[in-house]
This record gives sequence, structure tokens and C-alpha cells, in this order.
Amino acid sequence: MNIADRISRLGTETAFAVSAEAAAFGAKGNHVYPFHLGDMNLPTPSTVVEGALKAIRDGKTGYCPNTGIPQLREAIAADVSASHDVAYTAANVAIQPGGKPVIGKFIQAIMNPGDEVLYPNPGYPIYESQIEYHGGTALPYGYLETGGGFAIDIDAIERQVTPKTRILILNDLQNPIGAEASPEEFKRLADIVRRHDLQVLCDEAYFDIRYSGVSRSFVSLPGMVERSIILYTFSKKFAMTGWRLGAAIGPQNVIDVIGKINVNDESCSNHFVQYGALAGLTGDTAEVKQILVTLQERRDAAVAALNAIEGVKCACPEATFYLFPNVTGAMASKGFDDYDAFRQAALEATGVSFCTRLHFGRAVPGETDRYIRFAYSGIDLDQIQEGLGRLKGFLES
Amino acid sequence: MNIADRISRLGTETAFAVSAEAAAFGAKGNHVYPFHLGDMNLPTPSTVVEGALKAIRDGKTGYCPNTGIPQLREAIAADVSASHDVAYTAANVAIQPGGKPVIGKFIQAIMNPGDEVLYPNPGYPIYESQIEYHGGTALPYGYLETGGGFAIDIDAIERQVTPKTRILILNDLQNPIGAEASPEEFKRLADIVRRHDLQVLCDEAYFDIRYSGVSRSFVSLPGMVERSIILYTFSKKFAMTGWRLGAAIGPQNVIDVIGKINVNDESCSNHFVQYGALAGLTGDTAEVKQILVTLQERRDAAVAALNAIEGVKCACPEATFYLFPNVTGAMASKGFDDYDAFRQAALEATGVSFCTRLHFGRAVPGETDRYIRFAYSGIDLDQIQEGLGRLKGFLES
Repeated sequence: MNIADRISRLGTETAFAVSAEAAAFGAKGNHVYPFHLGDMNLPTPSTVVEGALKAIRDGKTGYCPNTGIPQLREAIAADVSASHDVAYTAANVAIQPGGKPVIGKFIQAIMNPGDEVLYPNPGYPIYESQIEYHGGTALPYGYLETGGGFAIDIDAIERQVTPKTRILILNDLQNPIGAEASPEEFKRLADIVRRHDLQVLCDEAYFDIRYSGVSRSFVSLPGMVERSIILYTFSKKFAMTGWRLGAAIGPQNVIDVIGKINVNDESCSNHFVQYGALAGLTGDTAEVKQILVTLQERRDAAVAALNAIEGVKCACPEATFYLFPNVTGAMASKGFDDYDAFRQAALEATGVSFCTRLHFGRAVPGETDRYIRFAYSGIDLDQIQEGLGRLKGFLES
Repeated sequence: MNIADRISRLGTETAFAVSAEAAAFGAKGNHVYPFHLGDMNLPTPSTVVEGALKAIRDGKTGYCPNTGIPQLREAIAADVSASHDVAYTAANVAIQPGGKPVIGKFIQAIMNPGDEVLYPNPGYPIYESQIEYHGGTALPYGYLETGGGFAIDIDAIERQVTPKTRILILNDLQNPIGAEASPEEFKRLADIVRRHDLQVLCDEAYFDIRYSGVSRSFVSLPGMVERSIILYTFSKKFAMTGWRLGAAIGPQNVIDVIGKINVNDESCSNHFVQYGALAGLTGDTAEVKQILVTLQERRDAAVAALNAIEGVKCACPEATFYLFPNVTGAMASKGFDDYDAFRQAALEATGVSFCTRLHFGRAVPGETDRYIRFAYSGIDLDQIQEGLGRLKGFLES
């Protein structure tokens, strides 16, 4: 059958190819240390599981409203209003089959063809894909390496913004690099948004994946709640990646449009899963907190092991479950210029599987330092230590 | 926030407004007889529930491949190959969060802006919405009332097809009217498809909701399997409407594109629900068969009760769980010309809630007979009898 022209503009997540390569390497009898995917190998808390099971027994197996069950919309509105210091109600929340659907639905609801959209690079590759698929112009902005991590390159945003720029995509607590904006940086960004009349997608997938301090939301800044849609997900906080549940949160006129897109695209999200999520939000939080304890142990071990490798330098983010080590020295000393060749050689020699900077966008002109990305959400502590020990052996040999 | 222009082209399912009205009427303390929605009030078979629970216990709560777990893709391919007399493999199947997502993804994958698409009217309103949303031209074709039911108006298709027509949407075993094409009609349609080089969406949502005889698929005709994508769903056969699971089935190049859209839109469908569906497809079928027995009892009762009303004439389809009675006489004798006024008066007077022809597309010029639609999937036998008895009292008074 003949394929429509628009599909040529559709991107993908090249990280899935890394998974396939790791699986093929493992299928040959090799041991794999899976640092490549932001999936989780932790069980979903029993509050969530029991809530979903009860809902199945109670017959919550038919359709539910296109924007989700009212109780869950209310619970999310209450939860996010409290943590963000704003006043959302159920009418500001549209349940989605995952956090990811919010990206495409936001773009469809807000962006006209020809509009310019600022988005992070390195960043989640679906932003660029959805912008270009729906006829927008994608303007990448980057991050600058600082002493303790990375800072959003606000000058790059200022340089690129034009009268045709309509949208800013922000992913604070960022995948892949774990960057977090300071209050001063948020203020500068809000000033740009106001001056240029931008609308904002706040991808807060990792808002609750935090080991110390308190997460701040961009929507808390004056005037920003009226201009922003939040991408909210149950995937990470509740170890529910495969359950597929999230929400779009924002001004009601946009939520209504997103609800209409829901009617067209999938009718509604799974009914009983929403009761599971509701039980998770309102029930005992001991297991939810344990997820963070486990992730923090893994982070500490991974950061220490990476920094123990010559030619590798790794910051220690207080949020997300990603690390973005600078491997400029290690690649040079092993004689690698090509990211993929380096990645494949490491996999073959050690079984350690990771993504590189190129899985999160095209390299920016003038970019000289080299980075790779490790996710520690899907690999146990002992395997982190063993795998990164092997990687050290390979990189220092 | 400002909404993008494309949203003005997006349609909806106006039947949801009927649900809202029925709910509001019920909330005032009135008894409602819910014939308006194709939802099901039957429990999901225990094979499916147990399969899903075991998967949760086994940790199938993380991401799965974007086109679904291989075992389910294989099981669907085997099942459909056998019933359709074709040779699909897992590579021809992309799992979806419901049957509905196949409509929009098919349109995106195949239709260019400006292409003409033939679609049924009365029919499922999302076809027209997705065609126009993505910039196509929607060409409605209708059905003709015959002695025993309805027949697809193939002449209307022949009349409208032009060199710009690229797609035919077929919903045999049709919602809302329960029409089923004869082998001769399928042959005529296949001839049109071949002559005009069309590509086909075969919406087979009700393929297995059948009370006597054997369902036939359009893809079984020579040359059609290479030109067709099947919309497949677990919603009806397994009483899983709220679980949200279905599949697109067809040529691998289109399935690959649909898989890429999956990556962009929702990553994957719920992981453990797929194990539930797999258990349903491969396990004991006693409860699945019982669903059909229950639905057939309801159909027989509803058809008899409707035909007992003066001015109402109702065919008895062997498939789907919908009835599309001709109410031209009843509306005239009650003095109603407006569909919505008639529907609301019936609801107010009797509590019987139903959709009308207008919930399934705009009336065609010259259309004189009047039809309403009853779904009997979400209402018990005694309520069918009681409700339609009240409706008789109202319409004959």
C-alpha cells in the first residue's frame, strides 16, 4: 500500500534500536547490563495493584468519560495544586493513556503549521518529531555544562526567538541530562514567555522523582499557569510505565480540545487502571517512597562508579533517574570519534548498554564535548556496580 | 490559550451528549433505560481477567514493544488468518489501545490532504472527523432499506468515485444499522476497488458479534488483502470496552508506519492487558460464547418489542448489537419532525434513551424516512422489555 507524504516528517525514538541491539547481543548468550532505557524494574506499589483489581471486580471494565473518571481528575488537580501553589480543578485535567500522548495532543491543540517551537536538545526526541510532523518549525536550544551539572542555555532561546515563535517546550528535571533550572533561570524564562507571548508545554514527567530538596514548577511563576499545559504521568513515581496512564493539566479551553482529541483517538483511557492510580494517589505511600530510596542508592553507586573511570566525568542530579556523563576523554583515549562505534564497542566488550547524545537530537554545530546517557531505573544495584566495573576495565585498557 | 486552526476541522461523537442528557435525567431521580451507548454491562470473561492478573504478578508492568507483545501479535494473526482464509503473521499486526485508534492512524498513514475518502453515512462519526481533520475530502455513501434489513448503496459509491478517490472505508456488520454485505455485493465492491486503485479500511469491530451464520471479511476476496487494513478489537467479543485493546492488521509496510505512529503517540499499549487478551484468545471460550447467548436473547426481545409498536418497523440483524428501527410512522403520528425533539420527548416521557440517525452523520439530501438507533449491549433483558413497553405506551398514546 502507498504511504502518505506526511509520514516522511515523522521521527522516532532511536533508543529503541539500542534496545534491539542489546536484546540481540543477549540472545547470543551474553550478559547485558541494561542502562539504555528509562523503563523500571521495580514492582508497582500494591496500593495501585489492589485498587485496579478491586475496580475490575466492581465491573469498571466498560467505557469511562473521554477525559477520565471525575474522582481521578479531582485527585490529580488537588495533588498538583498543592505542590505547584496554583488552583486547578477537575476541569483542568484530561486523563491520557500515558504522559507521552500529551506531547502530540498539545502540539495539535496549540501549534499552527509554520509556527516556531523552542525545544530542548539534547532532549526527548518526540518533541522534535511531533513539531515537524504537524508542520511546525523546530528550534533547538541546548544546555551548558556547569560546575555541578547543566544549565539551560537561555541565551540560545533569546537568540532564536522571532515573531513567529509561539511555543516553548520546557522539560525541567530533564531527560537525558537531569538539569534543573534555578529560580532565577525560571524568572528569566517567564520574562521571555511574557515578552514574546509564548505558550508553554511543561513536561514534568520527573517532578516527583527527586532525592533531596523540593521540585518547583514553571506554572508557579506569575502569569504562567494561564499559558502552560503540564505533562503529568504516573509512569515513574508509581513504577507504572507499562500501565500507560498520565494526564494533561492546564487552562480549560485547551483541556476541552484535548478531550475532543481523546474522543477521536482512543475514546478514553483504561477504566480500572484509573482506579488503581487513584488508590495510589490517595492511599498509603510507603512503597512509593521506597521506590525513591532504591533509585537513590542506584544513583549514588552509578555516579561513583562512573567518576572512578578515567576520562569520564559525571554530575549527580537530585532528580530524574538519568546520568549524562561527559566521556570526551574516554572516547579520545580509546580512539573513538563516532558515537555509535563507541557504544557498540562498549556493548561487545562489556555487555554495558547505554544511549549516546545522538539518541536525544542532532548534534549542535560547534558541539565538541561527548556525552552518553545512563538510565538506572531498570537495573539492580549489584548489576550497576558489576557492569560499570567492567566498563572501567574496558575504557582504561 | 489560543487554539490551533486545525481543531475547527475536528469532529466528535455527538452520542456522548445523549449520555450526558440521560445521566442528568437520571440524576433527577428518574429511571433511565440506556439504549444509547454501545457499551457493555457484561463482565469480562474470567480467562481474560486471570491472564491480566497473572501478568501483573509476573511483573509485566513495564514498557513492551511499540507494536505489542509478540505472542499476542502471533495469536491474533493466527486467529484472523483462520477466519479470513488469508496468511497473516505477527509482522502484519500492530497492537493498539483500542480499535478506534486504527481509524486515525490508518488515515494518517495512507491519506494525503486533498484525497477523497468514501465512508458510510449513517456510520461511525469518527470516520468523517478523521478524514476532514487530516485534510481529506469525505464522500458519504448510504444504505438502502430492503425487505429484511439494509444493503450498502453501491451505486452511490460508483456515482461518487473520481480519479482523486483513494480510500474506501467499509464497516460490514455495520454500526449503527447492522447491515451485512452479500457475497455478490462484496464482489462488486472489490471490482470498484480494483478499477479505481483504492485502499480499504475494513472496520471489523463486530466480526465476532454474530448470532447465526458465518461472518465474511472483505480481505478474503482476491487481491483485497494487499489493499486493506483491518480494524480489530477485543472490546465487543470479550466485553473489554474499558480495557482499551485492539489492533491494526494489514500489509507490513503500513503496519510499520502505524508502529512508528505508536512510538510518537503512546509508546505502547498497556502491557499486562495484552496478556489478558492473549489468555482470552487461547483459553477456554465458554464465557465468551455466553456473551453471545445473552446478547441474542436481548436482541430477540428488543426486536419483538419494537415491532409491536405502531409506526415502528425494525429489522433483525444477525450481527452487531444495534437495531436501527424505521420510526417514520411513529414520529409523524406523534407530530414530530425534529429528531432531537422526538428523542428528548421520549426520554422525558418514558426514560428510554436512544440515539437518532443524526448521531451517525448529516442527513443525505432527499432522505425522507426516519430512523433511531438502539444498542442492547448495556441493558438487561427485563429492562429492555419494561423500557420498550413504556415507549410503546408513549408512541401509541
